[in-house]
Amino acid sequence: MRAVVMYAPGDVRVEQREDPEILAPTDAIIRLPATCVCGSDLWPYRGVEKRDGPVPMGHEYAGVVEEIGDEVTSVEPGQFVVGSFFASDNTCEICRAGYQSRCVNAVPMASVGTQAQRARVPLADGTLVATPGMPRADLIPDLLAASDVLGTGWFAAVAAEAGPGKTVAVVGDGAVGLLGVLAAKQLGAERIVAFSRHADRQRLAVEFGATDIVTERGDEGVAKIKEMTGGLGAHSVIEAVGTQESMMQAVRSTRPGGHIGYVGVAHGVALPGLELFYAAVHLHGGPAPVRRFLPDLIRLIWDRTIRPGRVFDLELPLEQAAEGYRAMDERRAVKVLLRP
Amino acid sequence: MRAVVMYAPGDVRVEQREDPEILAPTDAIIRLPATCVCGSDLWPYRGVEKRDGPVPMGHEYAGVVEEIGDEVTSVEPGQFVVGSFFASDNTCEICRAGYQSRCVNAVPMASVGTQAQRARVPLADGTLVATPGMPRADLIPDLLAASDVLGTGWFAAVAAEAGPGKTVAVVGDGAVGLLGVLAAKQLGAERIVAFSRHADRQRLAVEFGATDIVTERGDEGVAKIKEMTGGLGAHSVIEAVGTQESMMQAVRSTRPGGHIGYVGVAHGVALPGLELFYAAVHLHGGPAPVRRFLPDLIRLIWDRTIRPGRVFDLELPLEQAAEGYRAMDERRAVKVLLRP
Repeated sequence: MRAVVMYAPGDVRVEQREDPEILAPTDAIIRLPATCVCGSDLWPYRGVEKRDGPVPMGHEYAGVVEEIGDEVTSVEPGQFVVGSFFASDNTCEICRAGYQSRCVNAVPMASVGTQAQRARVPLADGTLVATPGMPRADLIPDLLAASDVLGTGWFAAVAAEAGPGKTVAVVGDGAVGLLGVLAAKQLGAERIVAFSRHADRQRLAVEFGATDIVTERGDEGVAKIKEMTGGLGAHSVIEAVGTQESMMQAVRSTRPGGHIGYVGVAHGVALPGLELFYAAVHLHGGPAPVRRFLPDLIRLIWDRTIRPGRVFDLELPLEQAAEGYRAMDERRAVKVLLRP
Repeated sequence: MRAVVMYAPGDVRVEQREDPEILAPTDAIIRLPATCVCGSDLWPYRGVEKRDGPVPMGHEYAGVVEEIGDEVTSVEPGQFVVGSFFASDNTCEICRAGYQSRCVNAVPMASVGTQAQRARVPLADGTLVATPGMPRADLIPDLLAASDVLGTGWFAAVAAEAGPGKTVAVVGDGAVGLLGVLAAKQLGAERIVAFSRHADRQRLAVEFGATDIVTERGDEGVAKIKEMTGGLGAHSVIEAVGTQESMMQAVRSTRPGGHIGYVGVAHGVALPGLELFYAAVHLHGGPAPVRRFLPDLIRLIWDRTIRPGRVFDLELPLEQAAEGYRAMDERRAVKVLLRP
């Protein structure tokens, strides 16, 4: 099969790889009608995260089950399924508490590589959720988004306790931040402020439910949020970047007693203890336990209540994956869909 | 009146100071039958926090109202009252959300100084809570503890979501940590693990409800907690120290999805973003909004359900305040009660 492989920072290729096979009786093999590039794929692409290349790339997926191991009982060949970017048993104590991304048997799908024609999904029973039927083609980008960016934005909004009567601020206008806006809207937030200085992303934010756009960032952005909230700060802040500046912007934009949901993979971040102490905020985040939300998200997509696939603003054949990475790296695209 | 004043690190004196007077119509003057030294008073005593001496000391208080300003309506002279170490209006949006220590009009009682015979309490209506009657003398240490150490330990346990079915670990065996044990017990925690290597503090921890004592600290303490919890970590962790080591011990002792309530004033602490991200814990803390809990705490004390005053293991006349500071600094005493 054809698959994306990263050899070194900036060096992404599409090559012939062996078709995946059932290795454990709990595995499933799925065929991917679409796959995509994640903002977090840019960390190794930019050399911020070290990888010993060549490594397979991709961790988002939705597709058709082709084969299952002997112990798999919850999905069967021919079904369309969506899974999280962490495979999980969904039965351990951590999973049952809703933290499937930290399952005691978690397998990062990045180690499998889903920017490919097919993928092996470990722990299929705990990981995959079948859709009500075979989706129409136009729903596939939405379902693919549920695998990570939507599920991650959703988790951030839940962690930030977005809800009725709340003012929610969103730091980061990438796909996850934008889908954090969508999630906050679905969760009933009263006011949703998106930090963004890019016209196309602002438009998508408003389409997803943002009531206000703030173009200032850092402490100027914080001052703006304070001004909009009677000097108090937002009740809920979603952090979807993962830098020192974005984390501090999130902490300072939150009122005392408020909640921050952070999902940007924090690189080179050190949170100052004393400032955090006096901020008196709630801080929660990490790799999103997407599996917790998948049944609800699939239903909302199936009913066409939400269209998270709108974040894909560039579609390319899988063979042009390198151009997809470049477009995201240069911020020419919010998120790139690849067609195997 | 006689009052404690700190001139420089290690230099604590008892001097004659002007009796407090009503400065604003929302003030009250209270007479203090007892006062005390806080673990946080040791930060300036040790020179870790800079103060331009001489400064009045003390922020914990319980006593009898002697005089009230014209606008005070909720307490009257002759009543016994308890207040928090932050005066608050208890009417602003932040107070109504339960974060009175971050009230938009908050006044730190440390700026008043309550290690004295009398004290002026700003925002009396929002700050003071009257007891059901004049307490018997033996209840006064308990009520005084409610003003900070009990209220702070309680907040930490609430922030850590201690409750039925939960394993709670407590980092720090000072008065706040010990009262965090008491709070976790009252909140119904199933198992309470106290980190302590001091026999007297271990005894008090057990008296307050600890089910297990761990003498290891740092990563060895973490390994012990993991061993006790099937490798997962505690559901709830109370951090009551405020150092880099204690914060990391708390983060690493908590299972994914678990909750940390941190109330140690974090000095020189920098939380590593990436480790925190993958820990996937909830982090909440700050200056405890003691006012939120005071009515409940006073009732529990009045009914003699809890005896938080047990943390006072050294009682001295106010004139010997310097010895009180020394005893706590040298860890000869858990907490020192001063009799004006």
